Amino acid sequence: MRILVVGGKGTIGQAVVEKLHEHELIIAGRTSGDVQVDLTSVSSIEMMFKKVGYVDAIVNASGTAKIQLVEKMTPEDNLVAVQSKLLGQINLALIGQKYLHRGGSITLTTGIMKDDPIPGGASAAMANGGVSAFVKSAAIDFTQGIRINCVSPNVLIESYEKHKDSFKGFVPVPAERVAMAYVKSIEGKQTGQEYQVY
Amino acid sequence: MRILVVGGKGTIGQAVVEKLHEHELIIAGRTSGDVQVDLTSVSSIEMMFKKVGYVDAIVNASGTAKIQLVEKMTPEDNLVAVQSKLLGQINLALIGQKYLHRGGSITLTTGIMKDDPIPGGASAAMANGGVSAFVKSAAIDFTQGIRINCVSPNVLIESYEKHKDSFKGFVPVPAERVAMAYVKSIEGKQTGQEYQVY
Repeated sequence: MRILVVGGKGTIGQAVVEKLHEHELIIAGRTSGDVQVDLTSVSSIEMMFKKVGYVDAIVNASGTAKIQLVEKMTPEDNLVAVQSKLLGQINLALIGQKYLHRGGSITLTTGIMKDDPIPGGASAAMANGGVSAFVKSAAIDFTQGIRINCVSPNVLIESYEKHKDSFKGFVPVPAERVAMAYVKSIEGKQTGQEYQVY
Repeated sequence: MRILVVGGKGTIGQAVVEKLHEHELIIAGRTSGDVQVDLTSVSSIEMMFKKVGYVDAIVNASGTAKIQLVEKMTPEDNLVAVQSKLLGQINLALIGQKYLHRGGSITLTTGIMKDDPIPGGASAAMANGGVSAFVKSAAIDFTQGIRINCVSPNVLIESYEKHKDSFKGFVPVPAERVAMAYVKSIEGKQTGQEYQVY
């Protein structure tokens, strides 16, 4: 398969790339990788696909959100997650579907915060919940065998030290286990699923 | 209680208003009601609250989304739901929290399409899923007794004739039953909940 991995240099992205070594991979990143993309820009996504061309799978393992307590959160704070984690991923799917071979797949990334809230995590949770519901609903619209799923990881062992104050009591998971869910989405046949690696 | 009902002239809004007749109600709408507001505009929301002042409960029963099959959906199509159903409601909560008396509540509206997809419903589902996850997460951030919930209605009996082609096999519910969930959110003590009236 020819697979586009956006965010392939991040912790999850690298673990996914390792699992997919037998495939032809194109790594996309904001500043690194084989091709550059800014998911917050529709024209940047379009330009990336024009360079990359047709693929069999599109994976996104990137996206950001501002961690901010709701009592202090402004509409502007919330736009970080809207532009990146939410619309960045959905626009990747909307534009990318035209560059998928028949039977191709799209795999997006959500996260545990929508199911198991942490302080200041409401904006990220919003993006996660939006992507998850979009995936479930979008799956029934495809008529050319295209599949769409998302992976919802717990906090990672690899980044737990940095985030542990926000994730008290969470049991972190290895990125390698999270990567298996992406493999299931890409190489399996299911669609409209959220794979929760909690 | 002094209660602000945004969208109080819609089918759900009217049913909610009927249930709350013993309270002091302020009805907000785009063109109707006691005060006008455009939820897609942060400054319009701010202006409304400056006029209305402090309340004990904020309810939103408005919001729109473009129904469009994913294979035809553009990033622009999706922005209708982002600006209205998603950010309109979240910005109402973010700005409105400063105008709530201690112990006040916010009640937003999602919808069954995020759990039980219909063709062309992915953009609405995204907004519903985003609001639902935001509500669950935001609830843990409030320190002044403020509560936040949402109501997720099935298709309504009152509008089923208009929407029946999209909702084949759904069992529509009366607006009056949906309104009870808003009453539970406003007059009960729960927070972070999504009340599904399916």
